[in-house]
Amino acid sequence: MTVQADDAPAAERQRRGLVIVNTGEGKGKTTAALGLALRAWGRGMRVCVLQFLKNAHARTGEIRAAEKLGVEWIGTGNGPTWGSAGPEDAAARARVGWELAQARIVSGEYDLIVLDEFTYLLHYGWLDTSETVAWLRTHRPPMLHLVITGRAAPQALIDYADLVTEMSVVKHPYADQGLRAQPGIEY
Amino acid sequence: MTVQADDAPAAERQRRGLVIVNTGEGKGKTTAALGLALRAWGRGMRVCVLQFLKNAHARTGEIRAAEKLGVEWIGTGNGPTWGSAGPEDAAARARVGWELAQARIVSGEYDLIVLDEFTYLLHYGWLDTSETVAWLRTHRPPMLHLVITGRAAPQALIDYADLVTEMSVVKHPYADQGLRAQPGIEY
Repeated sequence: MTVQADDAPAAERQRRGLVIVNTGEGKGKTTAALGLALRAWGRGMRVCVLQFLKNAHARTGEIRAAEKLGVEWIGTGNGPTWGSAGPEDAAARARVGWELAQARIVSGEYDLIVLDEFTYLLHYGWLDTSETVAWLRTHRPPMLHLVITGRAAPQALIDYADLVTEMSVVKHPYADQGLRAQPGIEY
Repeated sequence: MTVQADDAPAAERQRRGLVIVNTGEGKGKTTAALGLALRAWGRGMRVCVLQFLKNAHARTGEIRAAEKLGVEWIGTGNGPTWGSAGPEDAAARARVGWELAQARIVSGEYDLIVLDEFTYLLHYGWLDTSETVAWLRTHRPPMLHLVITGRAAPQALIDYADLVTEMSVVKHPYADQGLRAQPGIEY
């Protein structure tokens, strides 16, 4: 985790943290972030997941897995109640969640941090996109991998990111076949 | 795992295995499959991953994680050597790998099976797509979740699948910035 001197081997010099954004209307944004967390955990890296909007008290498969793995998992949301008390309430929740994230980003205690569903906080204007990206540019440790998921990633976030993937729906069973979400698959 | 009677609650009747395909040119196909495996594992489901083409002896983050989780992981490939001895060799390897997969699919011992990079076996004609899909239609247990990844998923496989997501590149650091793949993120 030290800064490499200019005469370090090329492979070492090129090793650095990535900013990864999974966006789009399709499935797999959060799921791929979980896969990254698992892969990093497999290599003994220190992983933290902050989940926005989703119900922090749900007993989802991913929360159960994180507990079993010993991955730190922070639920900042309360599901559908985000914003139910009006936009000011949503903005206040967003700020609290973002402060929790900021503290962990600057801590130096993690190799990979996931901000799940974070794009919505920017998209709905609960956080200012320019300020948020500017803060990340100046505060993210260079070796920290940061994974951000959610639909409608703002362009400024895409500009900042190293790796951006769009997940698109080709076929969706819940919409197309009226099937309900399956535990262990969807959540 | 029993067949539900017609008068079972709607929520129960609608619970069944899904065929999930992650395709497209972007990142996140395998990674999202790993996320599904983790989520299912978190719920105590029985998970098996069969990996095609990729080097079965690599010490990737996902293989290390699977070992730590106790998830069965079967490497059927040998990386870039697939097909290096000619198309007949590749087809022979594909058949062996597919037989390993078939045995696990019909075994009833799993709730979720991942066939990682499996589309290539169909795309390159090492396995016959129609025969493969027909076999799945008649042999996959109804409650088994099956996740298939890889580019260029054939239409017959998409027709068979319940949930198909296309991952597209918006921005890619290895192509755009000349960065090398980062351990714990890419592998």
